[in-house]
Amino acid sequence: MKTILAVCVMSVLSFGAYAERQDQEPIKVIEPITGLDAQKVELGKTLWFEPRLSASNTISCNSCHNLARGGVDNLPTSIGHKWAIGPINSPTVFNSDLNFVQFWNGRAKDLKEQAAGPIANPLEMALTHELAIETLQSIPQYREMFKQAYGVNEITIEEVTDAIAIFEKTLRTPNAPFDQWLKGDDMALTQVQKEGYDLFKAKGCTTCHAGPLAGGQMYQKMGLVKPFATDNPDIGRKAITGNDFDKFVFKVPTLRNIELTYPYFHDGSVWDLEEAIMLMADIQLGMGVNEQEAVKIAEFLRSLTGDLPQVTLPHLPPSSNETVRPNI
Amino acid sequence: MKTILAVCVMSVLSFGAYAERQDQEPIKVIEPITGLDAQKVELGKTLWFEPRLSASNTISCNSCHNLARGGVDNLPTSIGHKWAIGPINSPTVFNSDLNFVQFWNGRAKDLKEQAAGPIANPLEMALTHELAIETLQSIPQYREMFKQAYGVNEITIEEVTDAIAIFEKTLRTPNAPFDQWLKGDDMALTQVQKEGYDLFKAKGCTTCHAGPLAGGQMYQKMGLVKPFATDNPDIGRKAITGNDFDKFVFKVPTLRNIELTYPYFHDGSVWDLEEAIMLMADIQLGMGVNEQEAVKIAEFLRSLTGDLPQVTLPHLPPSSNETVRPNI
Repeated sequence: MKTILAVCVMSVLSFGAYAERQDQEPIKVIEPITGLDAQKVELGKTLWFEPRLSASNTISCNSCHNLARGGVDNLPTSIGHKWAIGPINSPTVFNSDLNFVQFWNGRAKDLKEQAAGPIANPLEMALTHELAIETLQSIPQYREMFKQAYGVNEITIEEVTDAIAIFEKTLRTPNAPFDQWLKGDDMALTQVQKEGYDLFKAKGCTTCHAGPLAGGQMYQKMGLVKPFATDNPDIGRKAITGNDFDKFVFKVPTLRNIELTYPYFHDGSVWDLEEAIMLMADIQLGMGVNEQEAVKIAEFLRSLTGDLPQVTLPHLPPSSNETVRPNI
Repeated sequence: MKTILAVCVMSVLSFGAYAERQDQEPIKVIEPITGLDAQKVELGKTLWFEPRLSASNTISCNSCHNLARGGVDNLPTSIGHKWAIGPINSPTVFNSDLNFVQFWNGRAKDLKEQAAGPIANPLEMALTHELAIETLQSIPQYREMFKQAYGVNEITIEEVTDAIAIFEKTLRTPNAPFDQWLKGDDMALTQVQKEGYDLFKAKGCTTCHAGPLAGGQMYQKMGLVKPFATDNPDIGRKAITGNDFDKFVFKVPTLRNIELTYPYFHDGSVWDLEEAIMLMADIQLGMGVNEQEAVKIAEFLRSLTGDLPQVTLPHLPPSSNETVRPNI
């Protein structure tokens, strides 16, 4: 009886703690997504792993946003068609629907718009949308899948990118230790992680790294207080707006699953999480963070690793004799 | 009662038909494999998708033997490190443990020996075994997985290739329509497929394409009756034995899942299955096979597509600060 009462009291306290923490803490819980169209998800997953969306038939979405590796390729910048070295670090696809805009410079408003980019980018998949459609349309099973999911006989890039974006929305990583703590489980974080989180807030990191993504909600200048030293020529938002004050302004990246998404920053120049923390504190906040503090903050950041999606490989339908052949 | 009796009679007939067909037919049933060590299978699967076994950290076993695509890359020859174009068509990994030797020229006696090749091949993954081990040994979760699966603290290439080979053994594709027919289900094949199979035997194809793989049991000269026209310089078994009579002699490839494993032959020069059939009949058997016959034989060959493995992507453990960085 005492035990039951104790459990009830704890539950009430837990619920109270959850509501309170959700209100008070700058980082919010990530929840799994529900209510998506299962046929579109399945079609989107098939397209996600489809190397025939690239000129060489070897590069798929998954090549640079590897679902086995934190949704990234763990390279400074990606390798594309004919070993082209890309201009910028590949962002994680996990939880990416929660970003307020897509790409580092925000040039796509959502995942659907984003998905059209790499297919036709000569440094990435190096196909054209026309050839992508011709390829899919030449494969009877794809014609049937698009008909079932979208009711269309003629596939267009609209359905292709829509399906990919819907699949990407499934790639949430809920239930991280930090989420469990936000929901009231005081034991979900270690003492060091709690101290790291307090430091993270005290140093001002949550000014930018807030919300469910711990990031992804605003643009910010890379090198706000002191310049960021890099060989990467990317000028950030300025390439989109033409405004000088947008030079080196990028979308603030998510810190979710950060232990899996090295190397860090838009140039992928830093591999060590503690080093990244100290550099950010210095050039973005003008704050000193010593090694001991960086270790604690890194331990807190590792509590942002959630349950990774369980993804069963699709079986890609075979080409027909009409299918465009690879350009190697 | 009549129904039950009818079912019993049918079952007895089916069993009789199975035993009889298994004895009489040159192609045998493929069965799923059982009894493998689950920890080794799981470790092997993780290594299978591990791009850190390549110098660039972008090429895994799955790059050229894609489990989403019939266990191949559907290219004439594979693309490797720094876009190197490989010398020979990538064979399917599905059912590959049933081959009597591995590689087109049989230079590896089994899958374990085969698995060591691509990691260190400068045209493929372009790593060294030493760096592969150093990489795995630098990752705490891998150290733990090898300890659990093999009881070792020091990982060697022996355990790496053993685990990969054990995972590969799981990649059987049982239950093809042809297997169902072999087991006594007369309805499993269409009339055209049955006619195609009769032609396949009548033309002499089963001389080489027999056993559970419909191939993979012997070497044979490519161009036995008439020379095979190709730009590919590979001399086959002669590279291994030095014997002139082994020139252009290759392992006979499996025909299992052949509709998924285009383009065909060691040079990947033919994309169309009917064309491949007519060419083989001509240069290997000196037999005329007209287009109508080739269509029937192709329909029979499509009945060799089995249940493809359901593979859930592993979650690759993150690198440590000691892990070798990619060489791009």
